[in-house]
Amino acid sequence: MSVLIVGSTALDSIKTPNAENPRLLGGSASHAAVAASFFAPVNLVGIVGDDFPTAYVSLYRRHKINLDGLQTVTGKTFHWSGEYEVNMNNRRTLATELGVFETFNPNLPESYKKTPYVLLANIAPALQHHVLDQIKKPKFVVADTMDLWLNIALPDLLKLLKRIDAFVLNDSEARQLTEENNVVKSLAKIHKMGPKYVIIKKGEHGAILSGPKGLFISPAFPLENVIDPTGAGDSFVGGMIGYLAQVGGNVDQNIRRAMIHGSVAASFCCEGFGLNRTTKIKAADITRRVKQLEKLAAF
Amino acid sequence: MSVLIVGSTALDSIKTPNAENPRLLGGSASHAAVAASFFAPVNLVGIVGDDFPTAYVSLYRRHKINLDGLQTVTGKTFHWSGEYEVNMNNRRTLATELGVFETFNPNLPESYKKTPYVLLANIAPALQHHVLDQIKKPKFVVADTMDLWLNIALPDLLKLLKRIDAFVLNDSEARQLTEENNVVKSLAKIHKMGPKYVIIKKGEHGAILSGPKGLFISPAFPLENVIDPTGAGDSFVGGMIGYLAQVGGNVDQNIRRAMIHGSVAASFCCEGFGLNRTTKIKAADITRRVKQLEKLAAF
Repeated sequence: MSVLIVGSTALDSIKTPNAENPRLLGGSASHAAVAASFFAPVNLVGIVGDDFPTAYVSLYRRHKINLDGLQTVTGKTFHWSGEYEVNMNNRRTLATELGVFETFNPNLPESYKKTPYVLLANIAPALQHHVLDQIKKPKFVVADTMDLWLNIALPDLLKLLKRIDAFVLNDSEARQLTEENNVVKSLAKIHKMGPKYVIIKKGEHGAILSGPKGLFISPAFPLENVIDPTGAGDSFVGGMIGYLAQVGGNVDQNIRRAMIHGSVAASFCCEGFGLNRTTKIKAADITRRVKQLEKLAAF
Repeated sequence: MSVLIVGSTALDSIKTPNAENPRLLGGSASHAAVAASFFAPVNLVGIVGDDFPTAYVSLYRRHKINLDGLQTVTGKTFHWSGEYEVNMNNRRTLATELGVFETFNPNLPESYKKTPYVLLANIAPALQHHVLDQIKKPKFVVADTMDLWLNIALPDLLKLLKRIDAFVLNDSEARQLTEENNVVKSLAKIHKMGPKYVIIKKGEHGAILSGPKGLFISPAFPLENVIDPTGAGDSFVGGMIGYLAQVGGNVDQNIRRAMIHGSVAASFCCEGFGLNRTTKIKAADITRRVKQLEKLAAF
């Protein structure tokens, strides 16, 4: 079954202590779509300017990502630039130029409206709502977010939480949203806001799921070389929903392994700048690393 | 088989945002010994002053901890006081009064010298060496440490690393020791310093083992109520070596489950001040939580 993914489609300029890479393909939807593409057909929804490199369009196409919902308009593509510190955990934003994103109105092509699996990747909650309004009877809807929307669009986000099946956020966002320091307690508080499944991402420490079958502690794949963690969270959720769409059936029964597949997709993302590493792997590489992770976590 | 544990035997005064508890039984050896006692007979090595409450001697005895190696001398028991911040991850030391610890010379009773499993809990590396000098053909030796010894006794510690089977330290200590930000890379660097097994503790994020069978990602038991994490790391390593002594046989085959049992022992430690919670549980409570953890981590 196919996956609809809406989010940002951007150019990322990324500095790390060891290198500088300007205008890489980035954005939450790009990372999530490429990760999901290893598992299921993807319908992408996004917007780019007329400066968007054709090489990146080709990259999407190589991953068989449906671009009927990718608007190309006059103006500049959303551009983000950021810098990582030595430990690769702390980053600061150097510049955010919204460009054509400022006028983004994600109207879905007819062919997208019955997509059964929907990922509302990180983007303004109002746009996530607008996409959800157009979808007919989705089977499973997951939303991601970021601290910015907790700060400037909380009422919209809270309304969204009542409309989705699963909510993904990182640990600091969970603390901010619930005003609760304890991660386990914050999960219960977020359930009360609406979603049946709550997933808290903890970066290199993995993720934790709370759902109808209780908690699941999902490990991260241990990496010796973290080149650029940008997009790892998007890759995680993209891989996760891609896997759910691929296997179909009961989400309750599959969501743990979906998270593991997402975690592995994220591990590849971290091993190169932007999408450089992820676009070089095959589905078999993900399967191999999932098997490794099974061995690494067995006791 | 039995376990020898040397480390600090102290009185801890602990402040958290919610409560204040003076002169609790604490110290690395106390926490480790109580955790290990659920699995195997423990030979304790330590020193206390004549102000040491008899109630704490009774507590050790209730856990069938052999006190032949616990010296009681004139003077004050080692006293530590510290304060936790709201998130329970950051703590600061308010006072450290060494008392009788300053003159501690851990000479082992004859009956201790053939103990097969040895835990050199957190204490000055010179004292860890001195204990090891007296042990005859141990089966398995694990050492714990703290940042203080990296700062003031690094040469002693580096010599110790060549004499032990397993080294346990936390993630910030691993970074300090290896000058390497990446945890996975730091494991390889620590192996080169001597130990066959290296275990990095990550608090609520679990622990990671590197050994002859590769890496193991050990989950932490998720807790809704962290009352006081003091001694959690000591409980982890105490539970771990206790389990190894209980099951005997090949360490390679048992160390993963030993870490899981240590992790569960640490979880109980966090749920009360000092040893308050840990001393109220039974071995069956640990087994039950290990089974829960198996379910929480299965995929």
